[in-house]
Amino acid sequence: MTVAAQMLDAYPKDLGGVDKDKLRTCIEACFECAQACSACADACLSEDMVADLTTCIRTNLDCADVCDTTGRVLSRHTGYDANLTRAVLEACAAACRACGDECEQHAGMHEHCRVCAEACRRCETACRELLGSLG
Amino acid sequence: MTVAAQMLDAYPKDLGGVDKDKLRTCIEACFECAQACSACADACLSEDMVADLTTCIRTNLDCADVCDTTGRVLSRHTGYDANLTRAVLEACAAACRACGDECEQHAGMHEHCRVCAEACRRCETACRELLGSLG
Amino acid sequence: MTVAAQMLDAYPKDLGGVDKDKLRTCIEACFECAQACSACADACLSEDMVADLTTCIRTNLDCADVCDTTGRVLSRHTGYDANLTRAVLEACAAACRACGDECEQHAGMHEHCRVCAEACRRCETACRELLGSLG
Amino acid sequence: MTVAAQMLDAYPKDLGGVDKDKLRTCIEACFECAQACSACADACLSEDMVADLTTCIRTNLDCADVCDTTGRVLSRHTGYDANLTRAVLEACAAACRACGDECEQHAGMHEHCRVCAEACRRCETACRELLGSLG
Repeated sequence: MTVAAQMLDAYPKDLGGVDKDKLRTCIEACFECAQACSACADACLSEDMVADLTTCIRTNLDCADVCDTTGRVLSRHTGYDANLTRAVLEACAAACRACGDECEQHAGMHEHCRVCAEACRRCETACRELLGSLG
Repeated sequence: MTVAAQMLDAYPKDLGGVDKDKLRTCIEACFECAQACSACADACLSEDMVADLTTCIRTNLDCADVCDTTGRVLSRHTGYDANLTRAVLEACAAACRACGDECEQHAGMHEHCRVCAEACRRCETACRELLGSLG
Repeated sequence: MTVAAQMLDAYPKDLGGVDKDKLRTCIEACFECAQACSACADACLSEDMVADLTTCIRTNLDCADVCDTTGRVLSRHTGYDANLTRAVLEACAAACRACGDECEQHAGMHEHCRVCAEACRRCETACRELLGSLG
Repeated sequence: MTVAAQMLDAYPKDLGGVDKDKLRTCIEACFECAQACSACADACLSEDMVADLTTCIRTNLDCADVCDTTGRVLSRHTGYDANLTRAVLEACAAACRACGDECEQHAGMHEHCRVCAEACRRCETACRELLGSLG
């Protein structure tokens, strides 16, 4: 069992009607994607063709920040606010979509973009599935 | 002139059609609000009645994270993506609204909540004005 | 293979003399600990005895921020600076030590503190082992 | 009076022996430097000679993250831990020194690097002065 799953199980109060599995999946996907995007931005920086990757780097940096914040917001349950959660998940899905699309264009040439694009797709899916379950 | 204004002026490429004044105001409001919310969460923690302030602390922490990320996203112009900017600004306005409403309830009793509520209101307004100007 | 491991393998240039296994372990421990600390701060907030947990919450918030930044710095290899890496790892080990000590005091009573203390211990160890390997 | 100063004045408990002016100056310098570094990284990305600025971008990203975390840690006073504060300030001074040195090399050619180098110098000085006052 992951630490995120253990922490969810150890939450002392009720989690409300949230789907615990979708929540855990989304928290883990956000932190995984944040790390992948930070690493991908740096790997792009080290490429000889960095001048062709500046949009990818910017998208990586945005996505890393948004995923990080989303993972933090989702890790909090006290004083839950569905409106805020929804808006943050929408922003995260948008960031992951943009970054996944951008990285995918370089996936054939750069393995780091291929791995990062997959992390973005997983995180976008996790955000949308959690959004769907919020009703 | 603030450092944020100097950095905007020093950006070597075109900023696109964005309203530079509204952008600068919003960047500054985001960083100011992020700091105020981190400080307010901690000041609430130090209150004897902390048990009555747990929703305020949670809202502060969310708002600090969202404002911080929004300030970072808005500080980047290369590879600009209007969809992502809009979604992030919507999330930030929602976070500032929630935190401003919550802090305002304690503003009469806690000066830190009063100051923080004002920072949240300024930041929410700045986000909405920038959103409006994006067309 | 984790995404962090895949991203390390995909880095296009040489990683220098760094111990890749210790680096990967430390990156993963930082993100895991950052998430655990954010969740533990919130779980403490939801406890009826929150007034007795304010130092724990503060330490959790500090540790979450420091681990997050350390995980990001360690995910970058381009333009590596050993002095900065060392200073960041020292700060992260100090944050994890403080948070692990604090959470351990409540581990018998609060499962979230027990899980979080373990994440802090793992992260502190990973930081010290990486520090040791940097020479 | 800045919001950071108002929040410090509104802190409901004693701040301990800390020099309040140096603390406020350092908090403000950290957030200012974090913003400048995020903006400078992006401005470097938009330069035609981005391939010559990859170390500058990496140093900017590290410095933005470390300054942001330092500003947050310094905004918290409840459960104060001098060891952690010192380690974080040392890491922040190291990050600002590295980024200031790197940006200074490009200050004659890039106005954003000149402005950013100055923000880094101010923040490094503020960290060292606060460190000195901690005894």
